[in-house]
Order: sequence, then structure tokens, then C-alpha cells
Amino acid sequence: MVMGNRAPNKLEWRINVRNGTSEILQPESGLVHRIWSWLKGLLGEFMLKIWNFLEKARNIAVAEPKKVIHCLKVGVTLTIVSLFYYMRPLYEGVGGNAMWAIMTVVVVFEYTVGATLYKCINRAIGTLLAGSLGVGVHWAASHSGDKLEPIILGISVFLLASAATFSRFIPSVKARFDYGVLIFILTFSLVSVSGYRVDKLIDVARQRLSTVAIGASLCVLICMLFYPIWAGKELHNLIHRNLEKLADALDGCIAEYFTDSSAGDSWKKIGGYKCVLNSKAAEDSMAGFARWEPAHGQFNFRHPWKQYLKVGASLRSCAYCIETLDGCLNSEIKAPELLRRHLSDACITLSSSASFVLKELATTVETMRKSSEIDFSIGEMQFAVLKLENAMKSLPNHLVATPSSTSDGDAKAEPIRKTATPSSVMEILPLATLVSMLKETSARIKEIADEVNELAKLADFKPPSTKKASQSQSSNQVDKPSNNEERTKGLG
Amino acid sequence: MVMGNRAPNKLEWRINVRNGTSEILQPESGLVHRIWSWLKGLLGEFMLKIWNFLEKARNIAVAEPKKVIHCLKVGVTLTIVSLFYYMRPLYEGVGGNAMWAIMTVVVVFEYTVGATLYKCINRAIGTLLAGSLGVGVHWAASHSGDKLEPIILGISVFLLASAATFSRFIPSVKARFDYGVLIFILTFSLVSVSGYRVDKLIDVARQRLSTVAIGASLCVLICMLFYPIWAGKELHNLIHRNLEKLADALDGCIAEYFTDSSAGDSWKKIGGYKCVLNSKAAEDSMAGFARWEPAHGQFNFRHPWKQYLKVGASLRSCAYCIETLDGCLNSEIKAPELLRRHLSDACITLSSSASFVLKELATTVETMRKSSEIDFSIGEMQFAVLKLENAMKSLPNHLVATPSSTSDGDAKAEPIRKTATPSSVMEILPLATLVSMLKETSARIKEIADEVNELAKLADFKPPSTKKASQSQSSNQVDKPSNNEERTKGLG
Repeated sequence: MVMGNRAPNKLEWRINVRNGTSEILQPESGLVHRIWSWLKGLLGEFMLKIWNFLEKARNIAVAEPKKVIHCLKVGVTLTIVSLFYYMRPLYEGVGGNAMWAIMTVVVVFEYTVGATLYKCINRAIGTLLAGSLGVGVHWAASHSGDKLEPIILGISVFLLASAATFSRFIPSVKARFDYGVLIFILTFSLVSVSGYRVDKLIDVARQRLSTVAIGASLCVLICMLFYPIWAGKELHNLIHRNLEKLADALDGCIAEYFTDSSAGDSWKKIGGYKCVLNSKAAEDSMAGFARWEPAHGQFNFRHPWKQYLKVGASLRSCAYCIETLDGCLNSEIKAPELLRRHLSDACITLSSSASFVLKELATTVETMRKSSEIDFSIGEMQFAVLKLENAMKSLPNHLVATPSSTSDGDAKAEPIRKTATPSSVMEILPLATLVSMLKETSARIKEIADEVNELAKLADFKPPSTKKASQSQSSNQVDKPSNNEERTKGLG
Repeated sequence: MVMGNRAPNKLEWRINVRNGTSEILQPESGLVHRIWSWLKGLLGEFMLKIWNFLEKARNIAVAEPKKVIHCLKVGVTLTIVSLFYYMRPLYEGVGGNAMWAIMTVVVVFEYTVGATLYKCINRAIGTLLAGSLGVGVHWAASHSGDKLEPIILGISVFLLASAATFSRFIPSVKARFDYGVLIFILTFSLVSVSGYRVDKLIDVARQRLSTVAIGASLCVLICMLFYPIWAGKELHNLIHRNLEKLADALDGCIAEYFTDSSAGDSWKKIGGYKCVLNSKAAEDSMAGFARWEPAHGQFNFRHPWKQYLKVGASLRSCAYCIETLDGCLNSEIKAPELLRRHLSDACITLSSSASFVLKELATTVETMRKSSEIDFSIGEMQFAVLKLENAMKSLPNHLVATPSSTSDGDAKAEPIRKTATPSSVMEILPLATLVSMLKETSARIKEIADEVNELAKLADFKPPSTKKASQSQSSNQVDKPSNNEERTKGLG
């Protein structure tokens, strides 16, 4: 401590180098150096984080250019709206209230047209209702004496704010008017309370309303006219992509089990069902916004968006089944090769015909054109279920027959069979599960098909194209299995 | 057409009444009457809707009084903040900027403390960052000539608004700073653009900031001090309630299958797993908000909220399995009574020990106290799996033995067995599925237990209470099954 800072008496570390000389090891030159290197490390880490962040952002931008376009649209709208400040004639028209136009644009401009419209309409309704109510309460309060005025205002704010906040917990209000209620509370409080001090309340309210209206209509125009992103279209795409994902997952799952091909590519395909499992929140919000959208593209104003939710629910129910199937297939001890080979054809036929149904449904939804083949494919799938059941039924005979053929007498065959059966039940177990799960999955796929049919009816999908229809009419039950076999071969 | 309105020649409906007289049936008296009755109908319908709405609101209020308290808190805070207008000394301090305090309260006050803090902190960071950046840009622009000023301002608003909007698409930003970025865009646009017209920009900004700070701190105080609703606590409760729901569902599912009791009450219990299936969105948002909360109750500041999400994910994975199990049990053709009775004990034992594990885990999470019995219960569950497998293995012997005992010779027994086996495989199918699914479910319950153990380690749960521990030490393998049987009997 005493001679801490004196250089000559400092503690030194010497190191003897090979050529006989010795070097003094310099200790890190004190606090400054340490802080410097710490800062350098921190800076490096910070730069790395920034770099990773930018990398991530770039990936998102490349994957979904729509999002970049949305951002540019927001930038352009804000720049246009700020002209109210830069251009003298505009500024003299609205004055400091130009602020409200900017605020409206920032708060109201959303990714999809539906969400923007939802916010605009909610904002308009909320503002108008609360504004007129606020002016009314202000008028009543101002006519009831100086002492009573703040009391009446305070009580009305307390009651209305509490009631409105509570209404946001009611599901039907939350789904459609959540933002509107928020704006209602905001506007009512501002109008009724500030009326206590501001003299020309009506004038202020009128000016403010007009700037809000300008901001909102600018948002709606830019949102709808330049590269509009429709919530309905997004929902539509999500549903048919999910149908395809389920088809791939089912195919991949069964193919992997029977062919032992655990390639990375197939894993990616199988994992697709995991997106389906958690898509409820996205579907709900998109269906909510889609309701506010006008007719666009192939969608009418009263397109049955609710039916998409039902299709989504049946898709998830099927995804649960596939998830369990996948889990069972991976965790169970594999059934012996002989048994697996016996069922493999029937299973692959079923899974490929089931996934064909799913793909057909995906095409139906995607093209919004009824499929001429769907009933036939479903029939084929149900036929494949029966075939699988038969294959399962013939399983024990097959097993029993194998040891019997090697022996001659009945007496000798007996003990083999007796020892064979107990173990074979445990060996059958994974296959029995597989068969049950496949049956359950195809039953749920049937449900999906029902919901999609209902959607086709409600949304008035186009009739099947005549070319395809005539093809399918000419093809008969004898033709079909060969098609099916081709598909099956493609899988193996 | 010609004599349409002339009364004497009008078309009349006469009705002959029993006593010989006839009465003229009066047609509805024209447009006025019809409109009136239409209005009455409309009014009645409207009143009915209002009534239903109020009924729904009342039910929510009774079920969750916390929500009512939240609404009252919002009302009180708004009333307090409006004192800035009513009290002259306060109003003279802040003037028209009192508006910002009201606005802040309306926008920032959320149901849980975590959400309120998230919004307040985000608002503070966003406002400060954007405010200083805006003043900087304004200064730079104002020093570069009258012509260039609006151009520089416009370009900076466009660039920053676009970039900030894009950053909201990046998941890590969205999860933590979504609101902050929104406020950043808002404040930056307002400050930089309005600086073009407003002279004392710094003064305005300072006053506005102080009112925002007053509003925000009032929100935080009232939110945290009076009946606080913690997002962390809600998440904690959600997880242990979900554990209990799964336990009930599993128990109910198996009990219903084996006892044929399809009472309404048991259905309600079984349906509990459906809430678990879709709880991801709620869990994610609550965990996001819980991160912002200070230490409260049993939870430290760095409580491992992320681990709750992992527990939640494993719960959902188990719920998928139970969903499929439930579907399979309901859709399959029931196995014959004989086979079912053979497996019923083993299945009920397994399901009750599995649901006991889940309940034990629920208690562990609820009390935040490690369970002394959990390892033992898991062992018991795995033992029950083995027992079920053995029961399954002994199944065919049992089957084969039954027809054999009635016959004497080998030659006679042979055909019976041959015809019996194929059908019996299809009869075994539902049971085989049940066994596999139960095995898979218990494997997934083991995963839940692992995640809960990890949670107990990370969150430093209390050690098991000594009384319970000593009890469980004294109890041994021989004692336990009797306990278990009691539970099983309770089920039947």
C-alpha cells in the first residue's frame, strides 16, 4: 500500500527467454488500460449485436417485401401530412391542430387494409359519440352553477370512463370496438374536462375533427390504392398454405416411418404442422379485420370469413392428431420388419390418398373453384381405410402361418404359437396405434372437407372446370387405383 | 287500382262467429300502423339485445371482480388527473398541456401492472429518444437555409418513420418495444415538423413532457398500490390451473371410457384440456409483461418467466395427446366388454397415477414448494405403465384360453382359434391405441415434470415441508398401492 505507485520498487514479473536474456512482463497499465479494453470489448459486442439485428431485418425484408412496401407507405403518408406545417396556406387553415393529423396517421396506419379501416371507423364513431356526449355534459354542467360544475364533470368522467373500460372486457365489444371504446374515453374526457377552461369548445372540436378526418382519409387512400395488403387475402392464403403443410406433414411422417429416410429435407416438411398448431390467434385477428374490408379481388363484401375460422379449427384438430402420431411413431419401439412390411403398402396408400385429399382441398380454397374430384378422392381415402383394416385383420394369420409352415404336426406347432402370441401383441402395438391414428386422421380430414364444402357453398365458389370434370367422369374405379399406385410409388 | 282508397268498395274479410253474427276483420290500418308495429318490434329486439349484453357484463363482473376494480381504478385516475383543469393553481402551471396528462392516462393504464409499466417505460424511452433526435434534426435543418429546411425535415421524417415501422416487424423488437417505437415515430414527427412553426420548441417540449410524466406516474402508482393485478401472478395461476385441468381431463376421459358414465359433470371436466390447447397467445403476452414487473409477493425481479413458457409448451404437447386420445376413445367402435374389463384396472391405475403426478406438479407450482413425493409418484406412474404393458401382453392368452377351455381335442380347437384371431385383432385395436396413447401421455407428463423441476431450480422453490417429507419417507412401496387403490376406487 505504501509504495504502491512508486515505479522502482514495484513488483515485477520476469520471464527468462531461451537466448539467456530475461524480459519484464508488463502488467496491464492500470485502470485506464483496463477500461479501454473493456470498452473495446463492449463496443465489439455491441457492433456484433447491431450486425445480427440488421442481418435479421434483411432476412425479413427479403422474405416478405410486402412489409418493406408497408413501411415506405407509412413514410410517404407522414411526409405528405407534414406538408400542413410546411405550406403556409395549409397551416393557416388548421394551425396547431395539424398535430392531430400527424398523430392520426401514426396511430391508425396498420399493415392490412382491414386493420386500418377498423381503426379509422372506430376512431370516427368513438370520436363523434364521445364528442357530442361531452359537449352535452359540458353544457349541462355549465348551466348548474360554478360550484357544481366541476363536481358534475368529475362524476360523469368517472362513471363513463369506468363503464367504457369495463365494456372492453366483454368479448363481443373487444372483438369489434376495442379501439373505438379507447378513443371514446379519450375524447369524452378531453372534451368535457377541457371545456371547463377552453371558451370556443365547438370551434376547437370542429377544427380538430377536420384534421383527424384528413389524416384518416389519407391513410385509407394510401393504404388501399398502393399495393394494398388485404387481411382477407392473407387469411385465405394462410388457410390454404396450412392445408398444404398438413398434407406434406402426413405424407412425410408415414414415408419416414416406413422408409427410414430421416433426411433433413423431409424433417422440414414434417415440421410444417407445428405452424398449424398455433395459428389460432393470427386467424382470429385476421378474420376480425377482414370483416371491415370492402369487396376486393375475388372476395365480396360479405365473404364468409367466419367459415374460414371453422376450417382453421378443423385443421388444428387434424394437426393435433398428426402431432400425436408423429410423437408415437418416434417414441415407440419400432415394430419388427416383417410386420411393418406387411402393412407398409396399405399405410402408404392411405396416407398418400389422405394427403391427396388435403392438397385437393388446398387447391379448392386457393383457386376458389369447386373440385370435381374431391368426393371421389374422399371415397378413395375411405376405401384405403378399409383396405388398411383388412391388412390389419390378416396380420395374425400371416404371423401364425409363418412358424406353422416349417413344422409338420399339430402338437409341435402349438408351443411355437403360444410363445409367439404374447410377444407379438406388444409387437403389434405400434402398428395398431399407427392404424388407429391414421383412421382418426382420415376421419378428421373428412371433417375438414365438410367445412371446406360449406365454405364453397357460402362463398359461392366457381363450379369445377368442365375439362377436369369430363376427365373425372370418364375415369372409373378400375382406372383410379393405378393412379394411386403411381403416387404411392413416388413416395417410396 | 282505381278504387283502391275508397272505403265502401274495399275488399273485406268477414268471419262468422258461433252466435250467428259475423264480424268484419279489420285490415292493419295502413302505413302508419305498420311502421309503428315494425318500430315496436325493433325496439323490443333492441331492448332484448341490451338486456343480454348487460346480463353478459354482469356475469363477467361476478366471475372476475378484479376486472371491476380495474375499471374503478381507471375512473379514479382520470378524475384525479382532470383536477389539472378544475384547480386554478394547477392549470396555471401547465395550461393546455394538461390534455397530455389525460391522454397518457387513457392510453397507458392497462389491466396488469406489467402491461402498464411496459407502456410507461416504452413511452418514456421513445419520447426521450425521439424528442432529442427531433430537436437535433430541427436545429440542423434550421441552420441550412429556408429553402432546404422543409426538404431536410421531410426526408428525415420519411427515413426514420419507415425504418422505425420496419423494426416493428422484427420479433425481438415487437416483443419488447412495439409501443415504444410507435411513440418514437409519433414524437419525432411532431417535434421535428412542428418545430418549423412553433418558436419556443424546447419550452413546449418540456411542459408536455412534464405533464406526460405526471400522468404516467399517477397511473403506475394507482395501478401498483390499489389491488394490483400482476401479470406474473396471472401467468403463474394460469399454469397451475392448466396443470389441474389436464389432470381432471385425463382422469375423466379414462373413467368415462371404462364406466360408461357420460354425465354432464364429467364432460365439463374432460373439456378442460381445450383451454390448454389455445393458451399460447395468453401465456406469451403475460410472460412479456411480467418481465417489466418489480419483485412482488413470492416473485423476485428476475423470476424465470421464460421457463413458464416452456412448462406451458410441454403442457400443450400433453394436451394434444389427450385431445387425440379423447377423439379416439369416442370415435372407435368399443372393444368387447371382456377385453375392456381385463385392461380396465391397469388403465385406471395408470391414468389416476398420471393425473396424481399432474396434481402434485400443480401443487408444486401453486405453493412454490418442491414436492417430496414427486419422484416417487413419477416412479409409480412408470410402474403403472409397465403393469399396463404386462396386462396387454397377457391379453391374447386370456382370449385364446376362453374358447379352448370349452373344447377338448386339438383338432376342434384349431378352427375356433383361427376364426377368433382375425376378429380379435380388430377388437384389440381400440385397446392397443388406448395403451399406446396412455404410454405417450405419461411420457409427456414426465417431460412436464422435468420442466417444472427446472422451474423449481431456477426460481429457487422452497424445500419440501419436513412434515410431509418424513411422512413420505416412512411410507414404503407396500403402503403406496393401497393409497393408489383408494384413488382408483374413488374414480369408479
